[in-house]
Amino acid sequence: MKIAVDAMGGDNAPEQIVKGALEAVKKYSCEIILVGDESKIREVLREENDWEKFPLTIKHTTEIIEMGEHPADAVRNKKNSSVVVATKMVKDGECDAVLSAGSTGAAVAAAQLILKRIHGIGRPAIATPIPTPKGVTLLLDSGANVDSKPEHLVQSGIMGALYAEHVLGKKNPKVGLLNIGEEETKGNEQAKETYQIFKNMKTINFAGNAEGRDIPTGDFDVIVCDGFVGNVVLKFGEGLANTIFKLIKESIDNGGLAAKLGAMMLMPTLKDLAKRLDASEYGGAPLLGVNGYCIIAHGSSDSKSICSAIGVANGYIQSNVLGHIKSALEQEELLPKGKRD
Amino acid sequence: MKIAVDAMGGDNAPEQIVKGALEAVKKYSCEIILVGDESKIREVLREENDWEKFPLTIKHTTEIIEMGEHPADAVRNKKNSSVVVATKMVKDGECDAVLSAGSTGAAVAAAQLILKRIHGIGRPAIATPIPTPKGVTLLLDSGANVDSKPEHLVQSGIMGALYAEHVLGKKNPKVGLLNIGEEETKGNEQAKETYQIFKNMKTINFAGNAEGRDIPTGDFDVIVCDGFVGNVVLKFGEGLANTIFKLIKESIDNGGLAAKLGAMMLMPTLKDLAKRLDASEYGGAPLLGVNGYCIIAHGSSDSKSICSAIGVANGYIQSNVLGHIKSALEQEELLPKGKRD
Repeated sequence: MKIAVDAMGGDNAPEQIVKGALEAVKKYSCEIILVGDESKIREVLREENDWEKFPLTIKHTTEIIEMGEHPADAVRNKKNSSVVVATKMVKDGECDAVLSAGSTGAAVAAAQLILKRIHGIGRPAIATPIPTPKGVTLLLDSGANVDSKPEHLVQSGIMGALYAEHVLGKKNPKVGLLNIGEEETKGNEQAKETYQIFKNMKTINFAGNAEGRDIPTGDFDVIVCDGFVGNVVLKFGEGLANTIFKLIKESIDNGGLAAKLGAMMLMPTLKDLAKRLDASEYGGAPLLGVNGYCIIAHGSSDSKSICSAIGVANGYIQSNVLGHIKSALEQEELLPKGKRD
Repeated sequence: MKIAVDAMGGDNAPEQIVKGALEAVKKYSCEIILVGDESKIREVLREENDWEKFPLTIKHTTEIIEMGEHPADAVRNKKNSSVVVATKMVKDGECDAVLSAGSTGAAVAAAQLILKRIHGIGRPAIATPIPTPKGVTLLLDSGANVDSKPEHLVQSGIMGALYAEHVLGKKNPKVGLLNIGEEETKGNEQAKETYQIFKNMKTINFAGNAEGRDIPTGDFDVIVCDGFVGNVVLKFGEGLANTIFKLIKESIDNGGLAAKLGAMMLMPTLKDLAKRLDASEYGGAPLLGVNGYCIIAHGSSDSKSICSAIGVANGYIQSNVLGHIKSALEQEELLPKGKRD
């Protein structure tokens, strides 16, 4: 198992990326190629005295795609950028998977342009695992595409269900369509049309519409939505959880002695809880629908998240989800005629 | 100030609605007409011995619009339903405002069909106040319409800014467009087009794109989005906050003696915080863009939320926001030509 890690992508690159990769080669049985500016990567590794004992190597690149750049243009023009080179290594069979915490748009564009889409898939989708009290719920698409057509959402549902089954180990996963009401007549045109296609499918366990309030409960295994909605929801969730915990902390700081003492006594319990809800434990989100294993990590990833994301990549490769998606799409009856592109 | 309250709408109707209305006539200087099944309303009032001392009257109706019904059809067919009769009382000048916690779709349809839209407004919008550490942020549209056009979002921005200024007392309110990135090139077609119109407007303080994570911080006074996205976001926020607090409670219950004692000592502080974040303190969301004052309350409203919502209605009526919206729309340069409907 060989994983190409974009060492230059992310708010804390290269330091946290390199450190996370080193943690991962110690933890998982995989080989990692750090792709990026060799001197900068070596500078981080200099602090780690034992790295040469592990299967960690460096592939030097000279360019970086910045956050503000137009993704497809940047991928086309910066042939020696870390994310492009790392993605090409998967295309060329040198690596089994690519992982990036850099510009999501650039990682998606690189995967689409270099690895290409799976035949039968119109748009790839980012499947983000959301921690819930009942385990993980997969939200997709969480930002690869906007203005998706109903058939793209249906394809996301198929891919999400296969990922939930083969990687997350969920039997007959419940797939929901994110909508503004339970009834099938509810929603915008996109959601209403998508509902009608899902309803008639026998290959996935379609459980109807999921409302916003159903996302954090874990009642659905997979929730399908447009990438615009998915991205807004994920970032809102992050912001809201941060705001709540920040306010709790402020309240305690401004509270009396009893509050402070109470907080101290409660701390181990709250830390356990925070760990359960910590998205960085899940690390990476697979980009489903391209011809190769590609993992998108959060821009703010620290070494722990990167290490988890590499763990995700490992499980993803071993599951052969790509093969399952391809054979599912070959079943002629899966999508209505004229709905495949 | 006379307010028509739909006594039959909402999960806890008529009991909590009637009790909330009684609290409100005691608290605010307004008159309330409870619209609904007289015998059922009287049954609730029987427990309250002093209600006849207050300006609370009953308008008997025989029909109820249920949650699952098609809103516009139900409004057309059930002429004697509580929400239709209450809305007509505003149209006929018998009341200054209507308030309903019943089917949002029905309340919006009744307002559109009976009160009609303000000239220059293509779609009305529900403006939901979201509590944040820096005060309230107004999210609109939060569910009146889906598949909105850019000009509808722009109209929402204008109305939201006027409400924020004249009702919430914010000077030169910052208006943001909900999007998946900060840059103006980001987003779906709807968001990109809307950005271009907002950018060139001089009558509102457009502060650029707001991401999901900016909703709970209070950095924007008004955040504009399509009703599909707004509804999903609001329900997700409710669900997530509930899940977090439920998990904290569970952790404490399953924790040791120290955790339980700590929680007890921390409780007053946490209760203060919960009150600050409690949406029911804000109670109702105005439906902006129709020719009359209409307040949408949450379906799960209890008497406290209903009382708060009546307080919101009071402030809303006194502010003359309708007049301000009308004169803003009369400024010819406000919207690009051909963009008014």
